[in-house]
Amino acid sequence: MEGIRTIHAALLGAGTVGSGVYKVVQRQKEEMPFKTGANLEISKVLVRDASKERPGIPKELLTENWEDILSDPEIEIVIEVMGGMEPAQTYMLEAMKAGKHVVTANKDLLAEHGKILMETAKANRVDLMFEAAVAGGIPIIRPLKNSLAGNNITEVMGIVNGTTNYILTKMSKEGMDYQEALDLATELGYAEADPTADVEGLDAGRKMAIMASIAFNSRVTFADVYTEGITKITSEDIRYAREFGYEIKLLGVARNTETGIEVKVHPMLISADHPLASVNDAFNAVFVHGDAVDDTMFYGRGAGELPTASAVMGDLIDEVRHIIGNTIGCNVCGCYKQLPIKEIGDSKSRFFMRVQVEDRLGVLAGIASVLGNNGVSIAQVVQKRSKKEGMAELVVITDEVVERHFQDALTVFCSMSTVKEVSSLIRVYQ
Amino acid sequence: MEGIRTIHAALLGAGTVGSGVYKVVQRQKEEMPFKTGANLEISKVLVRDASKERPGIPKELLTENWEDILSDPEIEIVIEVMGGMEPAQTYMLEAMKAGKHVVTANKDLLAEHGKILMETAKANRVDLMFEAAVAGGIPIIRPLKNSLAGNNITEVMGIVNGTTNYILTKMSKEGMDYQEALDLATELGYAEADPTADVEGLDAGRKMAIMASIAFNSRVTFADVYTEGITKITSEDIRYAREFGYEIKLLGVARNTETGIEVKVHPMLISADHPLASVNDAFNAVFVHGDAVDDTMFYGRGAGELPTASAVMGDLIDEVRHIIGNTIGCNVCGCYKQLPIKEIGDSKSRFFMRVQVEDRLGVLAGIASVLGNNGVSIAQVVQKRSKKEGMAELVVITDEVVERHFQDALTVFCSMSTVKEVSSLIRVYQ
Repeated sequence: MEGIRTIHAALLGAGTVGSGVYKVVQRQKEEMPFKTGANLEISKVLVRDASKERPGIPKELLTENWEDILSDPEIEIVIEVMGGMEPAQTYMLEAMKAGKHVVTANKDLLAEHGKILMETAKANRVDLMFEAAVAGGIPIIRPLKNSLAGNNITEVMGIVNGTTNYILTKMSKEGMDYQEALDLATELGYAEADPTADVEGLDAGRKMAIMASIAFNSRVTFADVYTEGITKITSEDIRYAREFGYEIKLLGVARNTETGIEVKVHPMLISADHPLASVNDAFNAVFVHGDAVDDTMFYGRGAGELPTASAVMGDLIDEVRHIIGNTIGCNVCGCYKQLPIKEIGDSKSRFFMRVQVEDRLGVLAGIASVLGNNGVSIAQVVQKRSKKEGMAELVVITDEVVERHFQDALTVFCSMSTVKEVSSLIRVYQ
Repeated sequence: MEGIRTIHAALLGAGTVGSGVYKVVQRQKEEMPFKTGANLEISKVLVRDASKERPGIPKELLTENWEDILSDPEIEIVIEVMGGMEPAQTYMLEAMKAGKHVVTANKDLLAEHGKILMETAKANRVDLMFEAAVAGGIPIIRPLKNSLAGNNITEVMGIVNGTTNYILTKMSKEGMDYQEALDLATELGYAEADPTADVEGLDAGRKMAIMASIAFNSRVTFADVYTEGITKITSEDIRYAREFGYEIKLLGVARNTETGIEVKVHPMLISADHPLASVNDAFNAVFVHGDAVDDTMFYGRGAGELPTASAVMGDLIDEVRHIIGNTIGCNVCGCYKQLPIKEIGDSKSRFFMRVQVEDRLGVLAGIASVLGNNGVSIAQVVQKRSKKEGMAELVVITDEVVERHFQDALTVFCSMSTVKEVSSLIRVYQ
């Protein structure tokens, strides 16, 4: 629209998310003046190879030179969707120091260096927005910072990695084994060539660190998060879990307890009645518990070109509104507490356990008594016939126990002559 | 906290929501300076009878006189949680004209007189916030206005009335009939003494009008919403629906189509696989479809003292931040389009129909051909034995059809000698 101001932005990265952002900015072109009072134009796009064709992005916008963008006084917003630690961090810090606002989808960077990024934003009175860094298109950062700010939030929990949720869904619904499901996820583009960050829970761990920091108003970094992946989960575990009325999901759990913050990512059994149990395929969902709101859940696509671009675009619209309304610099860091972080050993869990034992009279009683003497009580148990002659399989769900005590009990338990192998050990959400 | 500014607010109404708001403001007292840069104090509470004891609210804050509040220059925010049209509207308009910001939970008023309220806010450069007016504690207004603003939103759909969802859940899960479930809801305080607004879909209709206006950037008022309640739903309907793989829910559906906006509230069959199908009891959930984000859902408690207070408190925290950051007046009305509203007869639906027919050879073929000749094709049909001698019951699900055409077909269909009664007619969500 003519006659009104145009805000110029630069895009760093023209991969999946970058091209999605460019696309959505174009789609919203006509609407922007009405939604924000200004036009928004992406006037430069930083790429590694400017000679490469980027479908949908005019070639004349491409540049390989960060200085081109940094020194362009017209550019007020830098959209960082290149990912990774460097040079992304340097670019973001330089941009903010030059008075440019930053919108980013970079969870790795925020989960490890959030503090310096926030401080730099504050010192330079610019905005730093990162809705897209957690759970793709699902609005979660803004609800935690604003709508739910009147709560004492005690728990943030959820399925925040689409790749692993897709794999577990295929294992659960179609009986695939882990490798088969992973291969399919790779084929469909849900998993990367090196799937480590997803399947080992690292990606989810970064998102949990970011959400925990905001929800509990206390800095949590990726290093504080205990992570365990899904590579050891078998379709048998899933089948047994279902017999007990559970699904197995890779859950991120952050709790604000009286003795400190717990943040962890690991596979968990979750009751089939729980809303998260029916979050399937590549969908994500975040469950938040607050003292006023009680339970609330946010569900949607946690990744992908356009869903992630949706989150970036929400931030861009807000940022343009801030610039036009002269209301910049108001999203300061909310980490005004220094709460201690608990070790995984100090947190409480229930456990699901599959154990191979000798099939003889009294073996279950013996096991129950050894566990009981070590402070672990059994909530549910089923004895299965084993494929091996003379062996039986016990499937046990324990009551809640301090993890450290459970590990001690497990050591004693594993030294029993009747216990041949602990085939699976998975936590249970309650 | 001393040494920093204190923002004064007045509370209009000390009923369920009002006392919840007071409670949450007290709970957040210590945190407010960190979250907002100021203290927040409720310094006056407007009630009808100031002599009545209000547990938790100091007696000296109570006043029966609106002028006391209006003329108090110290009061910068008015929190309207008295409900109803008048005097709430007069108070809100007067407050804004006197330069006070308004936070309200009043859906009735917003759904009918949103325009004048927004215009008054704008003209007086004050904020008008109403997160609590829709779906209680669930953050949905802010996500629609901000996080999802980069989307062309084509559908907002959901379960936005807890009373009716509780009743339908009891009918579905425990086989209760409608009256039995309503009585239980009344006993537990989920339904009011006069349940009309809930069971006839009026309450849900108001919420849909508000959400449609924001999502589609075009004014929709309550008068534009087609509403139909749940009073005719039987436990038999629910049982049959389940046989086809559906649950029955009271759904609000708002669609932005090429020929205009559709907004309606009525019972619907929804596939048991859909996330909304497992939203049970008094929980609410809103499903949003946008061109970038795809499907996203917001779930939580749609009513109640503290969940509603959570939403009000989120607005209050934002408002205090706005006052302190001098960023007021930025939540202007987003209805910049004037899209036409479609009549229910012009929208398309699928129908679930239970029909009592004569049990004789060829009757099904005859019915299918009459419907077919009138443009209605049958997607699924099951013939049941009837309790009455010589009669059969047909349970039919149609393909999508323009409602007007369906009604015409129904007239012809009902005049067939073999058709004795249409016992149920419920739309099907797809």
